[in-house]
Amino acid sequence: MRRGSLLRALTTLALAIACAAGAWAQAQAPLPSWNEGAAKSGIVAFVQAVTDPKGKNFVAPADRIAVFDNDGTLWAEQPLYFQFLFMLDQVKKAAPQHPEWQQNAAFNALAAQDKAALEKLGTKPLLELLGQANSGMTVAEYDKTIRDWLATARHPKFERPYTDLTYVPMRELLDYLRANGFKTFIVSGGSSEFMRPWAEKAYGIPPEQIVGSQQEVKFEMKDGKPVLTREAKFAFVDDGPGKPVGIYRHIGKRPILAFGNSDGDLQMLQVTTAGEGRRLALIVHHDDAQREFAYDRESHVGKLDKALDAAPANHWLVVSMQKDWKRIFGFQQ
Amino acid sequence: MRRGSLLRALTTLALAIACAAGAWAQAQAPLPSWNEGAAKSGIVAFVQAVTDPKGKNFVAPADRIAVFDNDGTLWAEQPLYFQFLFMLDQVKKAAPQHPEWQQNAAFNALAAQDKAALEKLGTKPLLELLGQANSGMTVAEYDKTIRDWLATARHPKFERPYTDLTYVPMRELLDYLRANGFKTFIVSGGSSEFMRPWAEKAYGIPPEQIVGSQQEVKFEMKDGKPVLTREAKFAFVDDGPGKPVGIYRHIGKRPILAFGNSDGDLQMLQVTTAGEGRRLALIVHHDDAQREFAYDRESHVGKLDKALDAAPANHWLVVSMQKDWKRIFGFQQ
Repeated sequence: MRRGSLLRALTTLALAIACAAGAWAQAQAPLPSWNEGAAKSGIVAFVQAVTDPKGKNFVAPADRIAVFDNDGTLWAEQPLYFQFLFMLDQVKKAAPQHPEWQQNAAFNALAAQDKAALEKLGTKPLLELLGQANSGMTVAEYDKTIRDWLATARHPKFERPYTDLTYVPMRELLDYLRANGFKTFIVSGGSSEFMRPWAEKAYGIPPEQIVGSQQEVKFEMKDGKPVLTREAKFAFVDDGPGKPVGIYRHIGKRPILAFGNSDGDLQMLQVTTAGEGRRLALIVHHDDAQREFAYDRESHVGKLDKALDAAPANHWLVVSMQKDWKRIFGFQQ
Repeated sequence: MRRGSLLRALTTLALAIACAAGAWAQAQAPLPSWNEGAAKSGIVAFVQAVTDPKGKNFVAPADRIAVFDNDGTLWAEQPLYFQFLFMLDQVKKAAPQHPEWQQNAAFNALAAQDKAALEKLGTKPLLELLGQANSGMTVAEYDKTIRDWLATARHPKFERPYTDLTYVPMRELLDYLRANGFKTFIVSGGSSEFMRPWAEKAYGIPPEQIVGSQQEVKFEMKDGKPVLTREAKFAFVDDGPGKPVGIYRHIGKRPILAFGNSDGDLQMLQVTTAGEGRRLALIVHHDDAQREFAYDRESHVGKLDKALDAAPANHWLVVSMQKDWKRIFGFQQ
């Protein structure tokens, strides 16, 4: 029994010191890349409210679930979703193995960079082509393809690796939330496997906390080894009304904080703030053409229209990249 | 700068004390309900090997992923999977709202407890009936139905709540693994939503670490509120070859430890031990008719045949409930 008591005392002491150290770290500098304003003060007030054990808005750590869209929320998404650029590059790479594509209208329009022809064809034949170029291999082979591409591909405007295009203020926010006992998840329209190779290093979010769109994969034994092979078919699209479904399936709890940037996040924000108790929903507004891009209602990529209209009545915070963020990317001063 | 140094020193001290306390707790009594033998010593040797930072088999905490089947591995599954019993009870409950079921052969065979008629019909009409009785409501309503059932239903043999039928040695193993930096997941053929209401209390496994079969759910706005409604259709069956797919989609890392009890776990065990480095796969063998149930190759529920044959060549540990476990349930001495 004496051993047990000593053990408990040691554990309590360790926890107390860890908590004191954590509290101090937070007090030192919360969100240094955020300018003072309604967005920053709204975030800090929310976090203080839900972590105050004596307050009426206290939320137990197990229920401090925060969900983040990825494209346009945690990293850039212009001129095209980066995963889309990757998948297009896979079409180029796979072309020599697919002589039949010479008769494929979508392939020919792509090869000729004929935008008018692509628009006329519509998205279906293009998506089918992308599906063919991005399937048939094992998931391990595909993972390597993604890593190789990320190591060499460069963003057309910033001429840097795509993984340099994560937003510093958002990385600070993720750290700040985790320091306050939150569990942070990505809930993205992109596919989980495209984010997993780099999201842990970039955001501190491990593969098992990434909810994304899912391609069909098939289990097989090949030469006595179990492998998963990618099929040219989507199993689940984690976008728009799919996001609450993805959250339900993967997390099984209603988030208390959600952060998005487009109409594809509308339903995720609705589900989050429809819960009881204090909730926070935020929208990144891309209004900084100089440091990043400026777009919203008319954009083909990351269109923000309905969610922007819904924000005031729902008390969702709209974060201006231009006004609320001191820096955007790590390579900018 | 001095603040930062003090902070680091405090954090280091806290971690050191926490580690010392943890190490002591483990040294005191690892797996007290397990008899000495190959199973227990195999588990302890594996955990020591992958957690020894100086050893060649060391695995970083982020990759210490352990997956557990639920039915027959963490709790009992006879005379029928408990979720199946629950779903059958929902048919009874829903019958007054479904006068059309009076013309349904599966319903009539069930109501008459006519086993011969049920076998003749096959599983399809029965599963369709179960699907109808377990859909149409919101996920919140269904969650309440599950909780209510668990609070009142009793197991036919043990005459106790189903949640009393978790295995004490397995709960100890889950605790032991987590104390050694493992992240524990359930990967079950049952549905996530049936396990979530009780798995955290029973096993210390939170909803977001439960991988299971998935029914289709649909997002809708009803009276201005977002709701998810259950549809009478399965989106994903997390069993057999589905388990490696579920693991890939949800966890995104290859487990280093897997524990199952039936042929439905075969592929999960194969995927786990096909990875590089040290791996451990285990099978619960139900060979204790006195304290629980005895069944394997001929059982309709939890059939263990191919996986039992595959165990020796793959160095999977077969755990005998009779010989390896001092106790099975918490209510037995």
